[in-house]
Amino acid sequence: MNMVGKIQYPLIALNFKVYLQSIGEKAVRLAKIAEEVSREYGVCVLVAPPLLDLEKVVQAVEIPVFAQHVDPYSPGSHTGSIIVEDVKAVGADGSIVNHSEHRLRLADIGMVLERLRSSGLMTLLCTDTVETTRAGAALSPDMLAIEPPELIGTGIPVSKAKPEVVSGAVEAVKKINPSVHVLCGAGISTGDDVAKAIELGTEGVLLASAYVKAENPKKLLSEMAEAALRSWEKR
Amino acid sequence: MNMVGKIQYPLIALNFKVYLQSIGEKAVRLAKIAEEVSREYGVCVLVAPPLLDLEKVVQAVEIPVFAQHVDPYSPGSHTGSIIVEDVKAVGADGSIVNHSEHRLRLADIGMVLERLRSSGLMTLLCTDTVETTRAGAALSPDMLAIEPPELIGTGIPVSKAKPEVVSGAVEAVKKINPSVHVLCGAGISTGDDVAKAIELGTEGVLLASAYVKAENPKKLLSEMAEAALRSWEKR
Amino acid sequence: MNMVGKIQYPLIALNFKVYLQSIGEKAVRLAKIAEEVSREYGVCVLVAPPLLDLEKVVQAVEIPVFAQHVDPYSPGSHTGSIIVEDVKAVGADGSIVNHSEHRLRLADIGMVLERLRSSGLMTLLCTDTVETTRAGAALSPDMLAIEPPELIGTGIPVSKAKPEVVSGAVEAVKKINPSVHVLCGAGISTGDDVAKAIELGTEGVLLASAYVKAENPKKLLSEMAEAALRSWEKR
Amino acid sequence: MNMVGKIQYPLIALNFKVYLQSIGEKAVRLAKIAEEVSREYGVCVLVAPPLLDLEKVVQAVEIPVFAQHVDPYSPGSHTGSIIVEDVKAVGADGSIVNHSEHRLRLADIGMVLERLRSSGLMTLLCTDTVETTRAGAALSPDMLAIEPPELIGTGIPVSKAKPEVVSGAVEAVKKINPSVHVLCGAGISTGDDVAKAIELGTEGVLLASAYVKAENPKKLLSEMAEAALRSWEKR
Repeated sequence: MNMVGKIQYPLIALNFKVYLQSIGEKAVRLAKIAEEVSREYGVCVLVAPPLLDLEKVVQAVEIPVFAQHVDPYSPGSHTGSIIVEDVKAVGADGSIVNHSEHRLRLADIGMVLERLRSSGLMTLLCTDTVETTRAGAALSPDMLAIEPPELIGTGIPVSKAKPEVVSGAVEAVKKINPSVHVLCGAGISTGDDVAKAIELGTEGVLLASAYVKAENPKKLLSEMAEAALRSWEKR
Repeated sequence: MNMVGKIQYPLIALNFKVYLQSIGEKAVRLAKIAEEVSREYGVCVLVAPPLLDLEKVVQAVEIPVFAQHVDPYSPGSHTGSIIVEDVKAVGADGSIVNHSEHRLRLADIGMVLERLRSSGLMTLLCTDTVETTRAGAALSPDMLAIEPPELIGTGIPVSKAKPEVVSGAVEAVKKINPSVHVLCGAGISTGDDVAKAIELGTEGVLLASAYVKAENPKKLLSEMAEAALRSWEKR
Repeated sequence: MNMVGKIQYPLIALNFKVYLQSIGEKAVRLAKIAEEVSREYGVCVLVAPPLLDLEKVVQAVEIPVFAQHVDPYSPGSHTGSIIVEDVKAVGADGSIVNHSEHRLRLADIGMVLERLRSSGLMTLLCTDTVETTRAGAALSPDMLAIEPPELIGTGIPVSKAKPEVVSGAVEAVKKINPSVHVLCGAGISTGDDVAKAIELGTEGVLLASAYVKAENPKKLLSEMAEAALRSWEKR
Repeated sequence: MNMVGKIQYPLIALNFKVYLQSIGEKAVRLAKIAEEVSREYGVCVLVAPPLLDLEKVVQAVEIPVFAQHVDPYSPGSHTGSIIVEDVKAVGADGSIVNHSEHRLRLADIGMVLERLRSSGLMTLLCTDTVETTRAGAALSPDMLAIEPPELIGTGIPVSKAKPEVVSGAVEAVKKINPSVHVLCGAGISTGDDVAKAIELGTEGVLLASAYVKAENPKKLLSEMAEAALRSWEKR
């Protein structure tokens, strides 16, 4: 199975953030583990390494690789910014947009999504409530991850703590734009959380610290992949 | 006719911004002229004076008075911020949200709209493209003004330069949330521009410099009120 | 004693922030109490009410009244911004600049200070470390308040928890620009804290929640005024 | 001559920004030309490629390589941010801080400079006026580049259009912290501009578009290197 540039569902999206455990060569190691698990289980795993390590990871693995963020600017005089054209030049497949740790203004989200799309890159938009998820769906990203910020990094899975937010988001998105794939994030840390997320109608999960800081990331991701497949088949 | 706290359509919304011609006592003068025209023509005129002059204008006129901006914070340790509770305390009727000169992050727009609504205040959300207008409609503001930023302050009316953006926005909003009232802004500077905006399906206009800097603001606003009524009756 | 527009030392500067206890008419009440204490003790007390309540407070009291924040813009198309010209138009005496809850970019601090000065308004710049205090002194504000952000609102007084930061800041400022008056803030909540601050070489304090949320603000402020005077005379 | 990690003066610092001519493999090409000229003339040339291309350039050349920007965060939950630890992990020698196109808040400049220093990385701080340059000097960066923003990208050299700003900045810096090396930028586009900058007391220049968009970047940079040396010897 060759998944270069191709997302399949159920999807496990791994945001590496910028932990000491995920920068530099460690980003490559975490991405390779993700690739191994993806191959063994036939589950799509997407990785979003630190921006400074993006190209290195793109060259090390064949699973989808996303930028964690991209600025809304055209090429030009924007010192220190990340532009869509360079995300494409280094070979990434898409970008996370509007993560709760890097919120964008609505007008800029519109701009960034359009710029990514017209460069042939994929878009994973993050939102925080059922209301902003509805707004997000109206902007037609490829994927949309709902992550109540108060649960991010807590280990309390959104799929258990706020199932109504997850199913409400799924429903809201489907009503506005059924072609958007819905993920959920925040607090996802076990295979069980992943299974529950898929049972609630999502097509996958977005997680970060649980994977990056796992004692045994391969074991954890394998459990998640297995749970994702099991839940997916029941639908 | 008593319009305190009550918006009627067609609506002419006047954003005073922070020009030398609109700060301090000049804000009161401009608001009183707006009130006079509103009474004479029976057309609803809404004013948004500079924040430091908000209470003074609220006390001087009976037409709807809006804040130009409000921050997404709860009461507390937010030195220098404008909170919904204080907008309400000084007696304003609502707030502009996400003006092109004060863009907010999507998550904050969601928060601000919810906070204004639960305080019983009205919301006028600004957006820039058909796409972000669609997202805006999904957030259910009372009013939504589409203003292509490249036309703001140019004197080139959006209703003439980009009629397809205006009618596209009207259509997009109606599809997602028919209860949202659509205005259009950017470059509106004559009665004719107002008429054209209403012909394109909007329920009014949002303008700033043309009124604030007019040699004879009363004459200009009277022409706009007349044009608005004429166009409105034809619908 | 008439202190309109005139700061004297020792100074007690009261930042009202935007608490439920400090917005609307409560801002006026808190300012009047400050004025009473100022008169009774002959100690200069400066108040910084919420921006929406600024003019009302200016008209209610004769002690110095500051804005909590001002934006770096010239008059013009800056919807929802607070400009220096309007701070002046409503009669305020100056502005807090770069409070830890409203940090500014260095270039904007430079611009804001210059704009305030050339409008004849006074400037109270906030900084957080000895290093940034040194930078702040180089910008020549009238007053400079060092507030380690980690202590703000804690009730742990900077003058006791980090005396070396306070005395280091005083020394750094004097070396770079001896005409800048140094205050300290963060955690100041008793007369004793004020006394200690002045003993460390400052010319006053900046406080917020302790006053705004005091059961008996007059009693607290009186104690502080007394302590300030006592400490001041010993120098 | 091996200049890895070692800055020498006169210095020509090249900010690649994010032009179509400077992203991806083109960043490597521009850096290699810089290295060639640096070797041929024995003049120190520093390059700051786009962030996504930083590591690739570090591995391709032996001249000093800087990040264009770094965020003030510690490692952790900061999706999409650039942290000092990762700048170091990919092998860069330092970072530009507070470029006019990526301004930072004063408190964050303090934090970033301290974090870079304690990681053994070098710092090139940008400022815009004599006043903010004075503040910048108080923060003790390794280098400080004064760039009046109104001249950036104009081709009007600061060294000719505003010589008093350049010499004023040099003087101000020397008074506050003589160990800081002063560069100047904005509009530098010929060897002559470089010579003039050094005559005014700077130790080098920071430039961007003139190099990145030059028809013959090698020829241009050679002229600049020659002019720099000539001027330097006269001092």
